[in-house]
Amino acid sequence: MSAPRSHTYTHFKVTFPVPFVAHVEIDRTSKLNTFTRPMWIEFGVVFAHLSHDPDVRAVVLSGAGEKAFCAGLDVKAAAGETTLGEEGGEVGRKANGLKRLIYEFQEGISQMEVCEKPVICVMHGISLGLAMDIACAADIRFAAQDTQLSVKEVDIGMAADIGTLARLPKIVGSASWVKDVCLSARTFSAEEALRVGFVSRVLQSKGEAVEKAIEMAAVLAEKSPIAVQGTKELLNHARDHTVAENLRYTAIWNAAMVQSEDFKKGLLGAMSKRKPTFEKL
Amino acid sequence: MSAPRSHTYTHFKVTFPVPFVAHVEIDRTSKLNTFTRPMWIEFGVVFAHLSHDPDVRAVVLSGAGEKAFCAGLDVKAAAGETTLGEEGGEVGRKANGLKRLIYEFQEGISQMEVCEKPVICVMHGISLGLAMDIACAADIRFAAQDTQLSVKEVDIGMAADIGTLARLPKIVGSASWVKDVCLSARTFSAEEALRVGFVSRVLQSKGEAVEKAIEMAAVLAEKSPIAVQGTKELLNHARDHTVAENLRYTAIWNAAMVQSEDFKKGLLGAMSKRKPTFEKL
Amino acid sequence: MSAPRSHTYTHFKVTFPVPFVAHVEIDRTSKLNTFTRPMWIEFGVVFAHLSHDPDVRAVVLSGAGEKAFCAGLDVKAAAGETTLGEEGGEVGRKANGLKRLIYEFQEGISQMEVCEKPVICVMHGISLGLAMDIACAADIRFAAQDTQLSVKEVDIGMAADIGTLARLPKIVGSASWVKDVCLSARTFSAEEALRVGFVSRVLQSKGEAVEKAIEMAAVLAEKSPIAVQGTKELLNHARDHTVAENLRYTAIWNAAMVQSEDFKKGLLGAMSKRKPTFEKL
Amino acid sequence: MSAPRSHTYTHFKVTFPVPFVAHVEIDRTSKLNTFTRPMWIEFGVVFAHLSHDPDVRAVVLSGAGEKAFCAGLDVKAAAGETTLGEEGGEVGRKANGLKRLIYEFQEGISQMEVCEKPVICVMHGISLGLAMDIACAADIRFAAQDTQLSVKEVDIGMAADIGTLARLPKIVGSASWVKDVCLSARTFSAEEALRVGFVSRVLQSKGEAVEKAIEMAAVLAEKSPIAVQGTKELLNHARDHTVAENLRYTAIWNAAMVQSEDFKKGLLGAMSKRKPTFEKL
Amino acid sequence: MSAPRSHTYTHFKVTFPVPFVAHVEIDRTSKLNTFTRPMWIEFGVVFAHLSHDPDVRAVVLSGAGEKAFCAGLDVKAAAGETTLGEEGGEVGRKANGLKRLIYEFQEGISQMEVCEKPVICVMHGISLGLAMDIACAADIRFAAQDTQLSVKEVDIGMAADIGTLARLPKIVGSASWVKDVCLSARTFSAEEALRVGFVSRVLQSKGEAVEKAIEMAAVLAEKSPIAVQGTKELLNHARDHTVAENLRYTAIWNAAMVQSEDFKKGLLGAMSKRKPTFEKL
Amino acid sequence: MSAPRSHTYTHFKVTFPVPFVAHVEIDRTSKLNTFTRPMWIEFGVVFAHLSHDPDVRAVVLSGAGEKAFCAGLDVKAAAGETTLGEEGGEVGRKANGLKRLIYEFQEGISQMEVCEKPVICVMHGISLGLAMDIACAADIRFAAQDTQLSVKEVDIGMAADIGTLARLPKIVGSASWVKDVCLSARTFSAEEALRVGFVSRVLQSKGEAVEKAIEMAAVLAEKSPIAVQGTKELLNHARDHTVAENLRYTAIWNAAMVQSEDFKKGLLGAMSKRKPTFEKL
Repeated sequence: MSAPRSHTYTHFKVTFPVPFVAHVEIDRTSKLNTFTRPMWIEFGVVFAHLSHDPDVRAVVLSGAGEKAFCAGLDVKAAAGETTLGEEGGEVGRKANGLKRLIYEFQEGISQMEVCEKPVICVMHGISLGLAMDIACAADIRFAAQDTQLSVKEVDIGMAADIGTLARLPKIVGSASWVKDVCLSARTFSAEEALRVGFVSRVLQSKGEAVEKAIEMAAVLAEKSPIAVQGTKELLNHARDHTVAENLRYTAIWNAAMVQSEDFKKGLLGAMSKRKPTFEKL
Repeated sequence: MSAPRSHTYTHFKVTFPVPFVAHVEIDRTSKLNTFTRPMWIEFGVVFAHLSHDPDVRAVVLSGAGEKAFCAGLDVKAAAGETTLGEEGGEVGRKANGLKRLIYEFQEGISQMEVCEKPVICVMHGISLGLAMDIACAADIRFAAQDTQLSVKEVDIGMAADIGTLARLPKIVGSASWVKDVCLSARTFSAEEALRVGFVSRVLQSKGEAVEKAIEMAAVLAEKSPIAVQGTKELLNHARDHTVAENLRYTAIWNAAMVQSEDFKKGLLGAMSKRKPTFEKL
Repeated sequence: MSAPRSHTYTHFKVTFPVPFVAHVEIDRTSKLNTFTRPMWIEFGVVFAHLSHDPDVRAVVLSGAGEKAFCAGLDVKAAAGETTLGEEGGEVGRKANGLKRLIYEFQEGISQMEVCEKPVICVMHGISLGLAMDIACAADIRFAAQDTQLSVKEVDIGMAADIGTLARLPKIVGSASWVKDVCLSARTFSAEEALRVGFVSRVLQSKGEAVEKAIEMAAVLAEKSPIAVQGTKELLNHARDHTVAENLRYTAIWNAAMVQSEDFKKGLLGAMSKRKPTFEKL
Repeated sequence: MSAPRSHTYTHFKVTFPVPFVAHVEIDRTSKLNTFTRPMWIEFGVVFAHLSHDPDVRAVVLSGAGEKAFCAGLDVKAAAGETTLGEEGGEVGRKANGLKRLIYEFQEGISQMEVCEKPVICVMHGISLGLAMDIACAADIRFAAQDTQLSVKEVDIGMAADIGTLARLPKIVGSASWVKDVCLSARTFSAEEALRVGFVSRVLQSKGEAVEKAIEMAAVLAEKSPIAVQGTKELLNHARDHTVAENLRYTAIWNAAMVQSEDFKKGLLGAMSKRKPTFEKL
Repeated sequence: MSAPRSHTYTHFKVTFPVPFVAHVEIDRTSKLNTFTRPMWIEFGVVFAHLSHDPDVRAVVLSGAGEKAFCAGLDVKAAAGETTLGEEGGEVGRKANGLKRLIYEFQEGISQMEVCEKPVICVMHGISLGLAMDIACAADIRFAAQDTQLSVKEVDIGMAADIGTLARLPKIVGSASWVKDVCLSARTFSAEEALRVGFVSRVLQSKGEAVEKAIEMAAVLAEKSPIAVQGTKELLNHARDHTVAENLRYTAIWNAAMVQSEDFKKGLLGAMSKRKPTFEKL
Repeated sequence: MSAPRSHTYTHFKVTFPVPFVAHVEIDRTSKLNTFTRPMWIEFGVVFAHLSHDPDVRAVVLSGAGEKAFCAGLDVKAAAGETTLGEEGGEVGRKANGLKRLIYEFQEGISQMEVCEKPVICVMHGISLGLAMDIACAADIRFAAQDTQLSVKEVDIGMAADIGTLARLPKIVGSASWVKDVCLSARTFSAEEALRVGFVSRVLQSKGEAVEKAIEMAAVLAEKSPIAVQGTKELLNHARDHTVAENLRYTAIWNAAMVQSEDFKKGLLGAMSKRKPTFEKL
């Protein structure tokens, strides 16, 4: 249903380092990759496109430049672009405007979770506030040794509302640690992030982290896209459903998907020990 | 809506070691801080008061004395205070009485989770049975090196019913370990508790653990109470809801809370690098 | 309601190494303990029987032989026994047949989770694909040093549908790691499985692992079956429900169960420091 | 666990027209039975007492006087008793205060739903705003011919927040009608309430409605309190759970309750056609 | 996967009045079609067979004989077949036995809901207690003019536990009426059942009701079984899920089913105004 | 955040018959208002615009012309615009394409439910298939006397997947009737629709129905938009949540909204009996 896309955007650089792998870079190095309103809207557009592009099977996300993956929201810009900074105004109408604005922001970032293709997020350097919200919406997280992470929102007088509080408790296995970092807004290191299971690998440098992420993405991209994308979808479903619900949903999913050519090729490949090639999806 | 409170109780000692920080001690050292029925009722009252007291922004909970954080339920006393120990009686009516009693007990302990202010629980010495139920209802857990923990209920012929089985699987990240300690009732150490993520810090002694907990509480108490209390509420909500549900609830929450003065002060503070002072909540 | 059972099966060996402990072995060593359709059906029958047999209070599951716990589905056999391998056919009717087949398969394996008695699963040697689905449905997991684990399904062109994707995210505490192993189908070691909390013990050899599992099972079998089986049921319930839901369900459960003799014996035993003996359940 | 109670209250009259039946009257006829803050708090207390009083098995609720069942909240009084009427103030802190106030109000009214005994609500005369919230929390609704009902809140510039919007869609069977009356705030008659299933009987006058309600309550009070109260609890549970969840909960509930004497007496009574007498609960 | 079945049972008569339509009769007229334990087990077997029999596309259920659809549980027989009637015994173990027995009973009756084919239940004559549980598990309900219905369980001292309390609130649109009939155990007529939406048709006699039910079943049996069975499944799913959940599940379901030949034939038939013939499912 | 909009569309006519009321007409009379793919996409756009347009407070939806509200999907066109009609093709890839297409279609129609403003849907003439999906997503339904309704999808060999099966069971109060019309695809009249509660009014003609709908919309448009839109949102939330969940969400919602000017104006208006004027939202 869709023509080949060009992936040219204003605030993000999208390249294709290896076949079927897209590398998305947050591209606002002058401001430590902080986000403005047009950026969170475009972020959603980027991942909506990647989701349906048959030439993409896995995605790597990183910040451009060396200093920061993302230093959070550009608060000053956001105040100008929205009603966030306005004094006074009718409380109820302001609440309604804020509700819409937060929905819009959440939807932009959540688009990465909704994206049918797996996303490996490479964190590096300054990674605070919104950086955590974004990383939480990815599938797999790597970090460079120098990453400084923080759920920073409490320090600007608010509870994080773009996804960290919703997702972090389901990403790592220590509720005590989650409350610790979310309530205190303290900075934690890549090593600590690895120890609690937030990231699954720590690499020496940003460069190496991106390299390894692209290597892993390339591995995923060689596999059946039916199998890989189904696995992402069913794991996301599992997070938010009971075991019984997920088993039922999975059965219906596979009632169609196991009929695909990929399953036949996969089986044959497994028996013949030859790697099959899969059609675009 | 509430006048300043005095925090004087029969079974608990409440002190204020630093501004806005309450230290609650289970105060029945003669019986290893085991609980009687009046104690679980008063426990609920203590935390209901702390929840609405504008002079409290963070709470530390520990046992009084050196030997035990809490050695569980005082079974002998409980048998006298309730119908638990009575022989015979009509099964259905006894079931109804037990249901009411368990609800009352659960509600007493859960009041600490419902408390709007974050609670840091310091475990030390003997910490078994009800001690685990209580710790599971706190936000952050510290332990002294000498803590001996156990989900002990199986050894008195019953399944734990005051919250450990409900909360522990959502506090730590290994279901295999949860089943191990809950089915076997074996004792485990502070170090093991740290390794699985049940506690987030282990300190040399009870004294040091309480000191560090108060230090952390003091840090939280300096931050915006709107932000801190919102973060506790939204994280508790996240545990029991899907990501989509939590995002929606969070958006409505912040539609009001982002209009508060604290957000303006927080932003200004962040930009000016000066720590703001927040009004009572 | 049930007469004493003999536990003789075609594909599984069931022995009773110590009182009240059953040891189930997957018994198809010639094919690396891979599963055929009659096996997954009989697997369900075995655990349905164990669930209601009053002479069984704890179960250990392992593979027979040294090479493999289980090398997954016997794909060739499954193709012959089901319509999985058939070319062509009407898509809708095939989908309906697949749905029924997957339900049947899921129900067979889930019977181990539904089994009222706790199950300790000992993994060893080759443990891939279905082996993971099975292990995920157990209560406690041990592994021998030589275990090679893999969520292998993606490599045969499909998403795992017998329980791994439903349960694994709720068994371990790192969502990033879960996506890593499920999307990449890479092999991981017993040590890695321990580190992320998938297994709770790693032993030197299969022999030692089985021995330690039986020892633990023997410990559980000496305790009150009312308490142990209640704890399993309430922990499984907790995984799939909110804290509030579980507290309510637990209160009703204990309104009956705390009236049992086991609670009285347990209390008395605790006070007298003498180990009580419990009646069959 | 509880001594015989006297049921004397400030804002409610509680009488016992027939054995085991309590008649609660909202007793502020001078103000059309509108509610003040002390009233919603006491309303909760009344039903908490009735819930555990073994001499009460069924409850009838009506307004005192002829004019009104309840004409809603006494807005002027509420403004004085709470911060509702205050100008200005910090938005975040006001939001926090309002949240607490709404919780308190909801809990007061919900206590009638939580009350273990069935409640028959008799509506008559003016029945608007809070009157609907209250009626929605009852088990069975009767109305006098002259009742004028209205979900009035929209007309004072707010969405109803004490239970009508939560419960009404689950009480009647036409979503189109629910939206009609809730969005338009229009008055509807007892006949219309009967036609859509909101009330189950319409009687000629308030007097007759109360009489018939007491008659029905007397019938319920002669039956097994184990059976009647279990049925209320399980039906309330059913409203908020899936069929599968409710079946499971019901099974556990009856695993205790079917062991009661009431079941034996009930069976014997059914076979012998003689009405049994049941013990207090 | 299944050979043609013979449908011969001990307690049920199954006939095939028109192609693809099965008529199941509860066949114990000597005891007013009351149920014994072997009957609820066989009831499940009957509907499991019908569910997978490709020669069945719709089912009609009625009682044999003129007097009763079903007069409930045969309490005396049940007492002999189970531990229900036994005096004394250990409360905990008895609770466990009762839990298993209730599960078994619920599963037997629920098999009719799980049955892939739509079931039209014809009620007539005496229809009380278990009769209601059974009718609630059907898809469509008809009643003969003479039907006397009652949720009778309260009158034997227990809360209904085989499905009425779980399903009835979701079958009809007046919560007030549901509480009325479930708490009072009063008898209600076919006309009242029609008025509240419990049955969708009332016919002059049992004979006519069965005839019209078979006519309707014949209409359903001529339609695409993919479409009819999918509609039953998706409506059952909708009852227990949010709208968003059901939309998602439906999309996955139809991703396979819309590829079936039936959709092509259905479309072609609609355009050509000729009734298509569908293959067995 | 949004400039005044012009509401000019290709397939829909949007007019403003009275202040703050939009009238949307499905505008493809030549094809009985059947839908093509561009239409369901534009339908979503129309309601997204209306949702945020401050000059709109209530919406009426009808078909253009006299013959049909909507005669369903334009199957022939849909086949050309999508892959629905294509022969052959890889089953898995086709399933993926269908899933995306169904999501897109569902989201288009659901936009009317998500629309912040209440929507009154006027059904008239032919109203089948998709017409039911659309009507189910509205808030209030009116029908002209001549309306012929049908859940038609079963007759084209598929289960309805754009919302009827998800929403209808929660709109009317007889599950038996829902299964009847959804399984049989039979036509039913406006009167029958009224009797079961699907529509809340039946009018003599389409003209009169539209007129009365606009009158009602005008009434809603004069009320506080904060109150009306909050009521819609909270009722939609109630449908899909437990009572406890909805009460909690409502409390947070009103913690902001009760601070609005509308509440003050509403109160004042109620006391002074003068109709207040509310600001745009």
